Amino acid sequence: MNLVRETNGIKFFDDMSVSLVECMGGDWKVCAAAKVSTDPVAVREMLEAEEREGAYGLIKYLARQRHGSPFEHTVFTFHATVPIVVVREWERHRIASYSEESGRYHKLQPHFYLPPRHRPLIPAPGYKSARPQFVQASDYEYYETIDSLSRTAVAGWMEYEQLMEQNIALEVARMNLPLHTYVSLWCTMNLRSLFNYLSLRTHEPEAMHVSFPMWEIEQAARAIEGIVTEHCPLSIKAWNEAGRIAV
Amino acid sequence: MNLVRETNGIKFFDDMSVSLVECMGGDWKVCAAAKVSTDPVAVREMLEAEEREGAYGLIKYLARQRHGSPFEHTVFTFHATVPIVVVREWERHRIASYSEESGRYHKLQPHFYLPPRHRPLIPAPGYKSARPQFVQASDYEYYETIDSLSRTAVAGWMEYEQLMEQNIALEVARMNLPLHTYVSLWCTMNLRSLFNYLSLRTHEPEAMHVSFPMWEIEQAARAIEGIVTEHCPLSIKAWNEAGRIAV
Amino acid sequence: MNLVRETNGIKFFDDMSVSLVECMGGDWKVCAAAKVSTDPVAVREMLEAEEREGAYGLIKYLARQRHGSPFEHTVFTFHATVPIVVVREWERHRIASYSEESGRYHKLQPHFYLPPRHRPLIPAPGYKSARPQFVQASDYEYYETIDSLSRTAVAGWMEYEQLMEQNIALEVARMNLPLHTYVSLWCTMNLRSLFNYLSLRTHEPEAMHVSFPMWEIEQAARAIEGIVTEHCPLSIKAWNEAGRIAV
Amino acid sequence: MNLVRETNGIKFFDDMSVSLVECMGGDWKVCAAAKVSTDPVAVREMLEAEEREGAYGLIKYLARQRHGSPFEHTVFTFHATVPIVVVREWERHRIASYSEESGRYHKLQPHFYLPPRHRPLIPAPGYKSARPQFVQASDYEYYETIDSLSRTAVAGWMEYEQLMEQNIALEVARMNLPLHTYVSLWCTMNLRSLFNYLSLRTHEPEAMHVSFPMWEIEQAARAIEGIVTEHCPLSIKAWNEAGRIAV
Repeated sequence: MNLVRETNGIKFFDDMSVSLVECMGGDWKVCAAAKVSTDPVAVREMLEAEEREGAYGLIKYLARQRHGSPFEHTVFTFHATVPIVVVREWERHRIASYSEESGRYHKLQPHFYLPPRHRPLIPAPGYKSARPQFVQASDYEYYETIDSLSRTAVAGWMEYEQLMEQNIALEVARMNLPLHTYVSLWCTMNLRSLFNYLSLRTHEPEAMHVSFPMWEIEQAARAIEGIVTEHCPLSIKAWNEAGRIAV
Repeated sequence: MNLVRETNGIKFFDDMSVSLVECMGGDWKVCAAAKVSTDPVAVREMLEAEEREGAYGLIKYLARQRHGSPFEHTVFTFHATVPIVVVREWERHRIASYSEESGRYHKLQPHFYLPPRHRPLIPAPGYKSARPQFVQASDYEYYETIDSLSRTAVAGWMEYEQLMEQNIALEVARMNLPLHTYVSLWCTMNLRSLFNYLSLRTHEPEAMHVSFPMWEIEQAARAIEGIVTEHCPLSIKAWNEAGRIAV
Repeated sequence: MNLVRETNGIKFFDDMSVSLVECMGGDWKVCAAAKVSTDPVAVREMLEAEEREGAYGLIKYLARQRHGSPFEHTVFTFHATVPIVVVREWERHRIASYSEESGRYHKLQPHFYLPPRHRPLIPAPGYKSARPQFVQASDYEYYETIDSLSRTAVAGWMEYEQLMEQNIALEVARMNLPLHTYVSLWCTMNLRSLFNYLSLRTHEPEAMHVSFPMWEIEQAARAIEGIVTEHCPLSIKAWNEAGRIAV
Repeated sequence: MNLVRETNGIKFFDDMSVSLVECMGGDWKVCAAAKVSTDPVAVREMLEAEEREGAYGLIKYLARQRHGSPFEHTVFTFHATVPIVVVREWERHRIASYSEESGRYHKLQPHFYLPPRHRPLIPAPGYKSARPQFVQASDYEYYETIDSLSRTAVAGWMEYEQLMEQNIALEVARMNLPLHTYVSLWCTMNLRSLFNYLSLRTHEPEAMHVSFPMWEIEQAARAIEGIVTEHCPLSIKAWNEAGRIAV
């Protein structure tokens, strides 16, 4: 992660960390699962093949016709370190499994998020809350923002530590921490659920349904999209051509 | 809600607010759903009866034998106002529907939680993080705690407002807010999922599997249990006798 | 249900029976749930209003922008009597609760489905299995079909009864029954999940994504759509205008 | 699969076929996911270790305390060929992904199930439908049963083929097939959901909650339990010691 400030052991980063723990399946498995419906021989051959491959035409058909089930047998586990404000939106996705760093059982780290300079901060002209879009802040506005967030982090962390020194329950002391505190989590999600996640958490003007996610969760989602693309290039291509909809 | 402090328009409360928006079903529907399996005539009669009632023997059998499905057709919608630290645990329950106050689209209220005097704050002798239990704090410890949480709330709120005055995106300004900020949400959950929720979010020494929830979420869970008991007394009784397990 | 044949107590019907057991919510609740995000006062006013109403503009925005959560707090319980071949497809919808007539605990009824005369039975010219469409059968083809299904039903039912007379386990004896045997079930599904169900189980040439469901499940789905339309006319209208997609 | 009869190309088998397509995770991943909560360093070390291992003490604690989430990141895909009567019960488990052989798009195989000689067929003395248990049939009863099921299969298959010869829609012709027709499916399920599945679909007198599944689905479940045990021996052992409950 990208360290941008440090004060008395309190560290500030300006990015989201997302990495792959493990995955199973891939384009070949999407195809094989589709063939379970109609062609048992093809399934057996795919399972026995030395090199397994998926066929783009079939995947495209599945994505376009919203045959979602075959995408569900390909599953990813991600390890992410993101601010709580991002976790809050992420964990609203219910077709997924989560294990998250606990503020009840464990002292959190003094790690906080600060928006990078290029993060648009100012409501765009004609701003509508229904479709929130932002433009670049001035230097003044930007530094006011990150100084504000830094002050809150330092003050909250000191209160947190002080209560811990007095032996107050971790689960209460942590209430002093602000929403840009980083926590780590594991998320296991199948490819169909990922399509829905990526559809809602990325802003893509060409998508059939354009979403307006918070900038920070989009950074996490783009990192995920990169990992998924590496492992399932045909599925991601087909999903893009089908308008990035949930299938 | 119970106001305990107020400073410059910033309000502190020490409780959880939970109320019923609407529910459907009840003990009679648990029984009728069970009879769908075996006795179509009984189902029709229950639907046509002027006063619908459930039978305790049948419900007890369902709870004890873990026949969970009949409990799923009884559904509650709750309106709750609780600190974010509680929402974070609550929304991990995935067999439920949530609509939550948005910090992206809307300015939050200057309302913060402070633990009441009787909230145990100090790790119990022989404390194990696997089974976290706490005892009463001294007056000194208690006031240190709530003063600390008050300072963080006031400082965070002022930073939040200041960034808003400078027209910074709400979704960034809110990162200044701490985890004891209140938000409102609606939660719709069926009776089977509620059994699981209540099983994990209440501490009941007599339960077959004893849980060690955070004190604050237990307050919310107890309020929910009260509402559910009013509407489904036989189901809650049977579930208690079956050891308060998830069915 | 519409009785079309009867032989030795064995009855044949040509339709799907779907009725409402109970529902909660409606258009007003979709709106109120949306306002939980941004306008606590509006929510309280809607809950306290003598006559609750929903606003079409808001619902249309939710449907078009795929804000699905507010639709989840409106929930229906249906009672249906349909052939097993329909249940098999229906129960693949996982965001729902099911209680179904049991062939293990209970003797089923001698009730079987026969397609009505207007059910298209012959693959359309240029038939593709990816988009199965059918045209009307001749009288000869039609009567061959229903005579075939009648013979199977009568033979299977007699085998079923004979095994029962010999005290063979119900759960084994029932294996003699064919897929057009009727069973009853309760299904509880929220409005968001219903949108997905209706989207996949109705054929609507104007829909954004055209589905090609089995004719029989479409009959059930159309009955459900009628009931939902009666209770949530604005939501169904908005969903239609948004292309009948899953939100 | 075990062929026991054959007539005019129609084949009868007396078993369930279940094999592993692919899995990810294992005992080590259960432990690593648990440590996400409390020990980020341990997680990193486990991911980087050359040979990954899980620790029994930790897994036992998780199973006994019903900390279910860490078990969700270990996921299996099974390929099964089982009669429709078994699929019907299996697919009621909703925390899973299914792809199933289609009777709409594809001609099914003339493969049918017959109970093996040791399958108990006669209600046990003192039989209660709430806890169905059976004892061995006499030779006479057994052969009456499988002859009955054979006749139904042959008759239904001939009707099926005849309608197909007349170009009747596959989706209608298949209604002639009985519930012991075999179909293939893929099922992807995580380890936590598998615990629930195995808990309900096996009869284990020592379990904390004793289930009374249909004999045939227990055969499938036992095959699955064998595969899971091979890949996650510590988790299965801990789950057994915890009473085989859903966690």
